[in-house]
Amino acid sequence: MSRTRTAPGRRVESDVVDVGEFQFESGELIPNLHVAYEAYGEFTGDNAVVVCHALTGSQHVASLGSGSSVSGQARAWWSDIVGPGKAIDTNDYYVVCVNVPGSCYGTSGPASEGPDGEPWGTDFPPVTVSDWTRAQRLLLDHLGIGRLHAVVGGSVGGMNALDWAVQYPDDVDRLVVVAAAARLDPQCLGLDAVARRAITTDPNWNGGNYYGDDQPDPEQGLGLARQIGHLMYLSKDSMDRKFGRRSAGRGGRGDTYPADPAAAFFPYREVESYLDYQAEKFAERFDANSYLYLTRAMDDFDLSEGYESDAAALAAFEGEALLVSFTGDWHFTTEQSESLAEAFRRSGAPVAHHVVESDHGHDAFLVEPEKVGPPLGDFLTEGVAGRAVTDTVADGGEPESEKDFAPVHSSLFSR
Amino acid sequence: MSRTRTAPGRRVESDVVDVGEFQFESGELIPNLHVAYEAYGEFTGDNAVVVCHALTGSQHVASLGSGSSVSGQARAWWSDIVGPGKAIDTNDYYVVCVNVPGSCYGTSGPASEGPDGEPWGTDFPPVTVSDWTRAQRLLLDHLGIGRLHAVVGGSVGGMNALDWAVQYPDDVDRLVVVAAAARLDPQCLGLDAVARRAITTDPNWNGGNYYGDDQPDPEQGLGLARQIGHLMYLSKDSMDRKFGRRSAGRGGRGDTYPADPAAAFFPYREVESYLDYQAEKFAERFDANSYLYLTRAMDDFDLSEGYESDAAALAAFEGEALLVSFTGDWHFTTEQSESLAEAFRRSGAPVAHHVVESDHGHDAFLVEPEKVGPPLGDFLTEGVAGRAVTDTVADGGEPESEKDFAPVHSSLFSR
Repeated sequence: MSRTRTAPGRRVESDVVDVGEFQFESGELIPNLHVAYEAYGEFTGDNAVVVCHALTGSQHVASLGSGSSVSGQARAWWSDIVGPGKAIDTNDYYVVCVNVPGSCYGTSGPASEGPDGEPWGTDFPPVTVSDWTRAQRLLLDHLGIGRLHAVVGGSVGGMNALDWAVQYPDDVDRLVVVAAAARLDPQCLGLDAVARRAITTDPNWNGGNYYGDDQPDPEQGLGLARQIGHLMYLSKDSMDRKFGRRSAGRGGRGDTYPADPAAAFFPYREVESYLDYQAEKFAERFDANSYLYLTRAMDDFDLSEGYESDAAALAAFEGEALLVSFTGDWHFTTEQSESLAEAFRRSGAPVAHHVVESDHGHDAFLVEPEKVGPPLGDFLTEGVAGRAVTDTVADGGEPESEKDFAPVHSSLFSR
Repeated sequence: MSRTRTAPGRRVESDVVDVGEFQFESGELIPNLHVAYEAYGEFTGDNAVVVCHALTGSQHVASLGSGSSVSGQARAWWSDIVGPGKAIDTNDYYVVCVNVPGSCYGTSGPASEGPDGEPWGTDFPPVTVSDWTRAQRLLLDHLGIGRLHAVVGGSVGGMNALDWAVQYPDDVDRLVVVAAAARLDPQCLGLDAVARRAITTDPNWNGGNYYGDDQPDPEQGLGLARQIGHLMYLSKDSMDRKFGRRSAGRGGRGDTYPADPAAAFFPYREVESYLDYQAEKFAERFDANSYLYLTRAMDDFDLSEGYESDAAALAAFEGEALLVSFTGDWHFTTEQSESLAEAFRRSGAPVAHHVVESDHGHDAFLVEPEKVGPPLGDFLTEGVAGRAVTDTVADGGEPESEKDFAPVHSSLFSR
């Protein structure tokens, strides 16, 4: 473990812990699960906040410490929200972020070393969100942390947070679910399936065995998968503003992938240039097998699995919940968040559904910290009564008319 | 030419015409452009209706005749709309549909024979929507048809129809643009770019040279491209209804593409099964290079190109126009159609924008003939005054409030 000596709010731990044998939801066992985490601030007994990262995120949530194994967009991915004086204030809270099993930033996954000293590859057991939560619980046990002040997660990290309320309802006082849902809708399931197919049809994927130094990575397939994902994170409005139909210049097409001569007659557009650049960057930092494993975990998550309803799944949770959704998000919509809020209401848990007006798409939870920070910070200190926390339901009443969150639709597709 | 002897409305011509040397918008020439077309009904001098097919469609628009070279979804693709007694009644109209240059159903394109007797491959010149329109004009000249009663097109076929109003404004009395727009938005441009990249990164694409009998087709890449397209044609609502999150059965995963062992733990969902089936079918019927060429033509189309505005581009058109859009369509939205309607209004052309309430997504123009047929049929006979034709603007007034077409948004993303 590395630990820097500095002011409490700037303290960082960064370590990989062997939590021993681990049985996955699938029933498969591995002899040693390694769990990589970072922790920020000082633990005082009741101030632990677990932050759950998104699909391709990492434990390196804040711009503190080295984040040594992490690069690109996985690095300091929520540094506008987590840090000294930020909404999740590391002067007040002990913030723990755990890289999930199946990922590639230090926690065991397909790219990490198996018992035979070789990378697991696709012999790594299938991974579910429930496995992530249990791995996080084991790491916290190791750190001597029982009950948590809060669990906070965005995107599939929000599903991870919801799973905490199901698996360990007594361990969580406050739950924050940002830009997430009780389950993916079939449109997103379809897009994820196509993304996986792009990876597995890349000949360099080679059945998942591409880790040798002399073997090429399936970077074309992984790049395509990332481009599909990226398009899911943006909105029509944000793409109109960012790129329009503007050309990045004829002949500017990169040499990272093949093209035919006729392509040269047409502009290489800014939107293409952006997607190609993102694909290239992503393929450098992420493991293709991990992308298969983690998207399947996301697709598989269903809050109500094993219960009669979402509300029944949440029945044992007695804390408070904040749901944050974004009007321009078509990956996880405000309707899905409202449906989740309804489930909390039926389960009897105090809940606030804070709708953020934004045309940034799903990305909003990362790129609009000035809109996410205040309700999040106030909720952590004061719960649903927090000053900056709003709800779609008037005090004690029925849900207001749809006008409260209907703007999602018009902002999403108006030009 | 084959011509069946039968009742006028059931008469079909099916032929491929060599219209001679053809200069593309790019400036490149080919010595012989072959144009495949079908025509239905009897030409009486003023009853010609040109139907423009969509991206992967063909000249075989109605379920009449043999459609010999055409299979799958390209075959009789609008038979609910075109035929004896249908909205575009072949007892009244002489309906001509032309396979566009760059396609693969008989008109010259990458897969057809070049001057050296070998397939053109990617030596075929780049193709634009303007080339399609001029090829159609040449074919009509060959058939002895001057002025048209109407040009009708759906999706990119609607862009083709718009281009008629720009290039040959005096030749068209009535224009019908269904589920189309003046240009693609950057979200769709991005998705098309990813689809093309899926093709060109398939090693079997081989720079576009895969036509030899001993060479494998880039069917994986083309399949991926089709899946991305298919997801653009459906809506969240239609996918919820069609597939939900239902499993098509564990272990049911096809053997058409590789998968890793961990995949077997998760359900093979109906949405995946559907997309995989569609991809396989499509790869059997369509040429990968044609997909590159035609999507680029679609991406490139911009009604206002060479003009100051969309209205300026339409200024010379003195006919009437019907625009039909669908509230659940996120490929071409009702807002885009309304913006186009505004351009017609500014240009002084009588126009009606008929909004169809539908949660079928872009596919609605094919799968909801009972909603498309009546306004289309009435417009062909009576113009914008047609009984079943509605407009977003009250008679002589300003556009009504957004409520008229705002439902697109809520139906698109509500569950």
